[in-house]
Amino acid sequence: MVVYLIGAGPGDPDLITLKAVKILKKADVVIYDRLANEEILAYATDAELIYVGKKAGEHYKSQDEINQILLEQGKKHNVVVRLKGGDPFVFGRGGEEMLALINEGINVEFIPGVTSAIGVPTSVGLPVTHRGVATSFTIVTGHEDPTKKEKQVKWDYTADTIIILMGVGRLKDNVKEIMKYRDSETPVCVIENGTLPNERVVISNLGDITKKKINTPALVIIGNVVKVYKKALK
Amino acid sequence: MVVYLIGAGPGDPDLITLKAVKILKKADVVIYDRLANEEILAYATDAELIYVGKKAGEHYKSQDEINQILLEQGKKHNVVVRLKGGDPFVFGRGGEEMLALINEGINVEFIPGVTSAIGVPTSVGLPVTHRGVATSFTIVTGHEDPTKKEKQVKWDYTADTIIILMGVGRLKDNVKEIMKYRDSETPVCVIENGTLPNERVVISNLGDITKKKINTPALVIIGNVVKVYKKALK
Repeated sequence: MVVYLIGAGPGDPDLITLKAVKILKKADVVIYDRLANEEILAYATDAELIYVGKKAGEHYKSQDEINQILLEQGKKHNVVVRLKGGDPFVFGRGGEEMLALINEGINVEFIPGVTSAIGVPTSVGLPVTHRGVATSFTIVTGHEDPTKKEKQVKWDYTADTIIILMGVGRLKDNVKEIMKYRDSETPVCVIENGTLPNERVVISNLGDITKKKINTPALVIIGNVVKVYKKALK
Repeated sequence: MVVYLIGAGPGDPDLITLKAVKILKKADVVIYDRLANEEILAYATDAELIYVGKKAGEHYKSQDEINQILLEQGKKHNVVVRLKGGDPFVFGRGGEEMLALINEGINVEFIPGVTSAIGVPTSVGLPVTHRGVATSFTIVTGHEDPTKKEKQVKWDYTADTIIILMGVGRLKDNVKEIMKYRDSETPVCVIENGTLPNERVVISNLGDITKKKINTPALVIIGNVVKVYKKALK
């Protein structure tokens, strides 16, 4: 009996791994949320599907409730899949689910996925590293837990490129903070709905990006690598 | 006529994406180097295989020579694959190859892969982010171009987790630099040959890690997320 924490990739259903598909095909139950592309569920031909994401007007399951469902299912079935968008450990609360399961003696295995943070810029031709331009990049959540007393995200990151996941909701506040450390001319690229048919790319800079209309979900890439991408567009 | 820059994933041949396999199957030619798992080449049933990596005692192809091969092949064939380990744009010099091709008017497309930097820690159960522990992580090369006059890698990264790719060769020098900014007790995890049968995990801290015997290739993960992993091991 194993619970598999599986990354479904950034959106395009073909950006899932072979390993993930093989496990989905033999799954007894798949526990998923809104971030996973629903087309991927078609591989789980023999599985019960349990949705734990948010639906309009409905109760949103807390992390404790999700952990409880994982424990119940993990004790009942041979192959339980917990499917998450991107990679299960990049801001997916996969670590908490892992610990909850391990504390109850349930076997857990981990199938990495293509994280949106890298997969989305790569798919449009925006290299997050580039010789002479960027030898480091920082991936950070734009949506830090607002109940936190002491903020852990401080925006003084010194890496050449900054990539913000869930970057839209608090973009204005976050950009204001980042401009304490980076010039307003620093190039910015925002990619809405990356790797999906309705993908949209916006190029701007730190000083102007908050004047643009941006829809969620979107990824924000900050740094001179955006210039490399612009060169590729010409 | 298209050249596809494709990420082959971190090592385990099942950690390649469906999209990559689909394109390999129709490839006329595959240009690859030592980082790609050779089992993956079996998907390219109809392709000529061109190896551009290093072999003992043989001439190592320069980036200019590789670009030249890509241009020649890109002008000759319908489906050219440039296969790279991990993701093509994470320290893979994919950006340079992209620009060389685009400058000659050749169509290029990009298929992201699971980068070792995230896929390797995820696959062992080490979450690179974790609620209350890490809301950001920096990915950096341990092997900065030694001919560079001004070092771009400065090691003063403020993200909660630091992940070093190609981290073995200069580990001693790099750890010395990192200890200017982080305590010697900071947990470190080194993963050799991640996702492969000969994978090996070493847990230590900044003060002691350089006393351990570590073989290349290995990934280095620095920060309190290593404590979460240790908790999962118990």
